[in-house]
Amino acid sequence: MTSLEPALAYARDHRERFLDRLKELVRIPSISTLPEHKLDIERAAAWLAEPLGRLGMTRVEVCPTEGHPVVFAESERRADRPTVLVYGHYDVQPVDPVAEWVSDPFGAEVRGDYLYGRGASDMKGQIWAQLCAIEAMAAQGALPVNLKYLIEGEEEIGSPHLEAFIEAHRDLLACDVVLNCDSGIHGPDQPSITYSLRGLAYFEVEVRTAAKDLHSGQFGGSIRNPLHVLCELIAGMHDAAGRVTLPGFYDDVRELDADERGVLRRVPYSDAAWLRLAGADTLFGEAGYTTIERVGARPTLEVNGIWGGFTGAGAKTVLPARASAKISMRLVADQRPEKMEGCLRAYLEANAPEGVAWELREHSRGPGAVMDRNSPYMRAAVAALEATFGVDPIFKREGGSVPVVGVMQQRLGVDSIMLGFALPDDGIHGPNERQYLPNFHKGVETYIRFLIGLATSGA
Amino acid sequence: MTSLEPALAYARDHRERFLDRLKELVRIPSISTLPEHKLDIERAAAWLAEPLGRLGMTRVEVCPTEGHPVVFAESERRADRPTVLVYGHYDVQPVDPVAEWVSDPFGAEVRGDYLYGRGASDMKGQIWAQLCAIEAMAAQGALPVNLKYLIEGEEEIGSPHLEAFIEAHRDLLACDVVLNCDSGIHGPDQPSITYSLRGLAYFEVEVRTAAKDLHSGQFGGSIRNPLHVLCELIAGMHDAAGRVTLPGFYDDVRELDADERGVLRRVPYSDAAWLRLAGADTLFGEAGYTTIERVGARPTLEVNGIWGGFTGAGAKTVLPARASAKISMRLVADQRPEKMEGCLRAYLEANAPEGVAWELREHSRGPGAVMDRNSPYMRAAVAALEATFGVDPIFKREGGSVPVVGVMQQRLGVDSIMLGFALPDDGIHGPNERQYLPNFHKGVETYIRFLIGLATSGA
Repeated sequence: MTSLEPALAYARDHRERFLDRLKELVRIPSISTLPEHKLDIERAAAWLAEPLGRLGMTRVEVCPTEGHPVVFAESERRADRPTVLVYGHYDVQPVDPVAEWVSDPFGAEVRGDYLYGRGASDMKGQIWAQLCAIEAMAAQGALPVNLKYLIEGEEEIGSPHLEAFIEAHRDLLACDVVLNCDSGIHGPDQPSITYSLRGLAYFEVEVRTAAKDLHSGQFGGSIRNPLHVLCELIAGMHDAAGRVTLPGFYDDVRELDADERGVLRRVPYSDAAWLRLAGADTLFGEAGYTTIERVGARPTLEVNGIWGGFTGAGAKTVLPARASAKISMRLVADQRPEKMEGCLRAYLEANAPEGVAWELREHSRGPGAVMDRNSPYMRAAVAALEATFGVDPIFKREGGSVPVVGVMQQRLGVDSIMLGFALPDDGIHGPNERQYLPNFHKGVETYIRFLIGLATSGA
Repeated sequence: MTSLEPALAYARDHRERFLDRLKELVRIPSISTLPEHKLDIERAAAWLAEPLGRLGMTRVEVCPTEGHPVVFAESERRADRPTVLVYGHYDVQPVDPVAEWVSDPFGAEVRGDYLYGRGASDMKGQIWAQLCAIEAMAAQGALPVNLKYLIEGEEEIGSPHLEAFIEAHRDLLACDVVLNCDSGIHGPDQPSITYSLRGLAYFEVEVRTAAKDLHSGQFGGSIRNPLHVLCELIAGMHDAAGRVTLPGFYDDVRELDADERGVLRRVPYSDAAWLRLAGADTLFGEAGYTTIERVGARPTLEVNGIWGGFTGAGAKTVLPARASAKISMRLVADQRPEKMEGCLRAYLEANAPEGVAWELREHSRGPGAVMDRNSPYMRAAVAALEATFGVDPIFKREGGSVPVVGVMQQRLGVDSIMLGFALPDDGIHGPNERQYLPNFHKGVETYIRFLIGLATSGA
């Protein structure tokens, strides 16, 4: 049995080196959506595979997929220990708007208690904290559980090849529980466990009204402007109460019951703090729900990008031929992502004006998930957080999507324990993303306590 | 008195050289809106100033302004001849979408009867044809009229410094009539004279709902999406009948009377040909007006560009902080461009939701104009077109804007004769802009006949 205290002491003694190594990882610009970063993706995968070989893993592989590779590893398997599959991703989001970053997005600069850089919080800081915990336990001579690793490189583009990889390697990935590090806690001193995630369906729409760009003086007033058409279509996708108008959109939504509304009311929340976090002046959303419910338990449709016509500096009097938008939906139980394209298509068919051509294509999709709040794994996580932070964790729903959690439920039949230490104000996906370093170190300790706790609880 | 036939013969003998020189001019990428082309702007101005010095002008100057320079020239002044001020511009539009060009936008490639290149039609081909006509007459030993030239470099960005230049040089520019070459004819074998131009007011709007880009999972459903807000605002700018909803927008519009509707009904037009020209499937516009009326005699509001959020390849789940649009209006008599910012501001104030910040700024503006169809100058233009094309010209209204025409009316008290030879399918402002070469050569002959005709008519 791995002893707890020496492992914790080891982790405390090596904080500086752990952080230096994290900076190395953050400096690799592994942006999965941009083809020009393909080599960086490969560098990040190799960087993570290297230490795994020194931490008691008996097999480490960088497995090719049709997209970016998966880092897989497993330790020696002993039948008397539970098997934990650690999930993470080494890819990151693009950095635009780059002008709003205070320091180089891939500079890994420390300012105060924070490490700044794209991916510092989402999720290089989290997966690296987990590996640091393993190092601390391996240094005591043995690991407390059987470990497997699945670290992918396509999470930020919707994990297009992950489900096939999992399906093709079900035996290899067989486990008792998934430790999913792609998560966060409610506040620096308020640990929390996410038991629900929204699903995602992401589309691109193009509208065309002419074969080529036209002069707005020569034709303006006689030919439909595709920017007007696209704006009208988007404007019609919500009603005045903030509800999505797509046919069938709410058909499968599981309504919250009184019990769960009670659980969610215990999540600390204030309008003022939420607005400060967003940098916004006003709350807005679907009528009849609290902000916590809107974000965690209600589906949304958001335009993530729009473009068309002349967008440079100055003025160009063009009547454009086409306009495009990226439109995504966050889904809740029991909505099925694969049904959403049909809802959007039905809306466009019913509402696109005559003579306007449009195209719809899906970029990615993934299921949401709801986990059992009373499993032994969940109880071990609660105990580890309480011991590390000195505060009882709260249960919460997450508005973001970690589609792999639903895929693991469906393909491997196991729940995921969402145990990561990102904070709501880390600025993930935006400029000046950062990792709060005190919680990076608490994260290492929590992972140690969780895995040793699992081994001793007889889960 | 300059003789007509020798001048026409000279023009016919020098067609090949005239075209070679036009290619030189088209190859200068004098894009006025892009700062990186500042040197090309200066090259184009110098290129035009050079021949003017050899064509009987006694004074040629490239005059600095606060923006791009104005090329000014004048011939010896004789009191017994009318004074004609030739207006043109040497700047061009940007070339995006560049991928849709078949050949280099600045390659000046001839394919069939066309010269392809940005600016070939708008308006390097037109101003150069006029200079070729002067060469043909100067070669006979004398010019038939007093000539002045004002060739600007900021027409495609709304001529921000031209009105001040004209106001500051009213004596220098004094004339009996303006020959404005920035114009076209109805079809290759159907000459026409434009007697009305729409004005323009061009704006940019930015909408903001948060201080920074947010994660669409973390905040989606609880904070307003500025792309939705902008789309709703734009969607509301027209009603179901295609009318603009901005408060006061139509207040000063001069309605067409029965007489003028009759003049416009004589403009050859077919729906099928118009749609083919636009590459569109469906006509659309303000209820109660014909296409010719919608384009020539009715004001419009068009979104010329829109952008916000993630617009690269792939998917990014961002809830953006801001969204922007370029919005322009084409104005008719007696709308005043300077009133339009107030209309747009009033609309935004009434319709932007609470908690949404917006900014509005004006890029450019210029008045429209209506000219006397029965002046001696107009009659000379009609005669020159009829003699060159063998067909009576029609009178038409132009949907585009040549703000200098209104400025010349207001500041110099003179009408402009719109005499240029661009064709509706030249693709100006779009990809694969071209000049129809048979009409370039007819243009040279028309300019010769017009100026000699003016001198002999005693205008």
